[in-house]
Amino acid sequence: MKIQVKGVGLTKFGELWDKSLLDLSLEASVEAIKDALIDEKNIDAVFVGNMLIGKIAGQDHLGPVVASALGLNCAAFKVEGACASGGLAVHLAIQGLLAGTYKNVLVVGAEKMSDAPTSQITWALMGASSSLERKAGLTFPALYAMLSQAHMQKYGTTRQQLAYVSVKNHFHAALNPKAQYPFEITLEQVLNSSRIASPISLLDCSPITDGAAAVVLAADTNSKGVYITASAVASDTIDLAQRESLTELKATQAAGKLALKQAGVEITDIKLAEVHDCFTIAEVLAMEDLGFCPKGGGGKFISSKATKLGGKCPVNTSGGLKACGHPVGATGVKQIIEVTQQLRNSAGKRQVKEANIGLTQNVGGTGATVVVHVLQN
Amino acid sequence: MKIQVKGVGLTKFGELWDKSLLDLSLEASVEAIKDALIDEKNIDAVFVGNMLIGKIAGQDHLGPVVASALGLNCAAFKVEGACASGGLAVHLAIQGLLAGTYKNVLVVGAEKMSDAPTSQITWALMGASSSLERKAGLTFPALYAMLSQAHMQKYGTTRQQLAYVSVKNHFHAALNPKAQYPFEITLEQVLNSSRIASPISLLDCSPITDGAAAVVLAADTNSKGVYITASAVASDTIDLAQRESLTELKATQAAGKLALKQAGVEITDIKLAEVHDCFTIAEVLAMEDLGFCPKGGGGKFISSKATKLGGKCPVNTSGGLKACGHPVGATGVKQIIEVTQQLRNSAGKRQVKEANIGLTQNVGGTGATVVVHVLQN
Repeated sequence: MKIQVKGVGLTKFGELWDKSLLDLSLEASVEAIKDALIDEKNIDAVFVGNMLIGKIAGQDHLGPVVASALGLNCAAFKVEGACASGGLAVHLAIQGLLAGTYKNVLVVGAEKMSDAPTSQITWALMGASSSLERKAGLTFPALYAMLSQAHMQKYGTTRQQLAYVSVKNHFHAALNPKAQYPFEITLEQVLNSSRIASPISLLDCSPITDGAAAVVLAADTNSKGVYITASAVASDTIDLAQRESLTELKATQAAGKLALKQAGVEITDIKLAEVHDCFTIAEVLAMEDLGFCPKGGGGKFISSKATKLGGKCPVNTSGGLKACGHPVGATGVKQIIEVTQQLRNSAGKRQVKEANIGLTQNVGGTGATVVVHVLQN
Repeated sequence: MKIQVKGVGLTKFGELWDKSLLDLSLEASVEAIKDALIDEKNIDAVFVGNMLIGKIAGQDHLGPVVASALGLNCAAFKVEGACASGGLAVHLAIQGLLAGTYKNVLVVGAEKMSDAPTSQITWALMGASSSLERKAGLTFPALYAMLSQAHMQKYGTTRQQLAYVSVKNHFHAALNPKAQYPFEITLEQVLNSSRIASPISLLDCSPITDGAAAVVLAADTNSKGVYITASAVASDTIDLAQRESLTELKATQAAGKLALKQAGVEITDIKLAEVHDCFTIAEVLAMEDLGFCPKGGGGKFISSKATKLGGKCPVNTSGGLKACGHPVGATGVKQIIEVTQQLRNSAGKRQVKEANIGLTQNVGGTGATVVVHVLQN
């Protein structure tokens, strides 16, 4: 498969008190359409990735909300798959293009989280998880803390190795003007930050973020540019208790394997990746389950600086969910944008040298949904 | 395009106090997979159409919830577009098949509404509409009442003509064992039922319903069977105040026109249809906007019994949303099932004679989303 990324648009990520979900969606969309050098009337389908706005502000039916605000009355969809909503929206938009039904599609991932009280956001986010987990009083930091504990026990992954994921991603975010936290932090700061759910501390966690990301995709395969060459989705139980193992995300393994096959590349061909570091353990699992390093070796691999800018395969050059921010529905689309900018050689101070093949991994819940894309130029 | 409807599964519609959303989804899915005569392991993608469960019970991320309960770890998606969620799920599933990415997909539309208090359901449903309409205190009966008033004023449509839509659809529902209200009602009963929002009375309104509908679709075009030959989506502003006209749904006109073109048929070729009669005026608008009768002539057309079983084009033989019931996310999928059963000549007492081409029209909100499918055998 070969789908062109014709245009990208990205808002600042952060606590954006003066902007609504629609403001953010339009800002990113208008930028993406302009970047695509097409007339917006040529957009024939709009895909919106969003998880929370229905629950926290009552507004569903986002497809036509966004489309009509752009002056379009084309096909319009909202896709939800928890924190993978953006990645799934990209995947489904691609299907419409491959089918030949649509020629130019706009995919917008957007989330407005800071307006809601933390208790409401916590409740809303737990919709990604199982009713049993909700009844048990579990929250996402607690669920990922269990994954962390299991990994530490089985493979000897250390607290310092986990903390280093945050240090690395803040280092990258400091080079990204769109990042929510564009500054560096130290290992000591992570280790000494407030404990949330052992071993996870505050600075192991991705934040509450407002933001939107948009891409214009087209089936056009003639012109030069950045292409999505694989789009794979896999699922798993939403309930951790039903899994055979807590030290791997099988959906990442399945989607990763399928994506590499679709693109016809090996994991060693990947020059950079954006992965779903909602908590530090998630990036460790991603490295292993995608095959960047052997199972159990993720902590050591990341600490070796192989995935830091300048290393053999920089990961989360945007700053990742941790430091660029995690507006839930936007994240999967933002990952596509970061890799596109790298492949266009337009990533500024965080440019990866000789970037020609990149990968994105977007996770919903604790791995019940995983979407993997491969991009090439 | 040509997509086979390989299997269908439908629960009873009604107030199903002893069944959860997942129970209903699985019941319909297992029946559809069995009807398709395939092993469930051959399902490679699951599309769930649902609007409300996240808001009323906290549970999002329904794709993997349904897939994993079926023992599948394939690609899984939730699609939301208000009351058109089911139709949109079918449309997007078709794109995955046409793209060649998936071979056999399961589409499940499901809703569990009766567990929630009416006030919560009213709030949740208004997510389909605009924030301005919500702030103004409008509810869906009020919005459709405005559409009714405008139509009565402009075209002289009568209260009796509107009421007759309910009478006809209850007549059909009396022949459908899956219907929520499988009994006939009289014109007087509709006219004398409690006034909700003038001119809409209680028996002009579709009910609160629990239920699920599932179909297995495949790209297989070799075997005999029922095929979806058109799938078209259009959108409009979600806010009625932004529309040029209150006496037509432009998205129905656009999606209908596109669907007929895709299928290569004329409206006069359609032998039966399932349309979105959430309120009686909606069926009048559907008849006109799809082209079954001239603009303004819908009330007269329906009252002529042309769309009653035995007429030239029976409409809503299932009983429609009014009498079969309206479990929001299930409705668009149930429409596909009713037409499939008619084309299979397996609709029992409500069988339309020589049914060979059927159409479905599924509406989100007050017409911000419209999905039209054409089916042929």
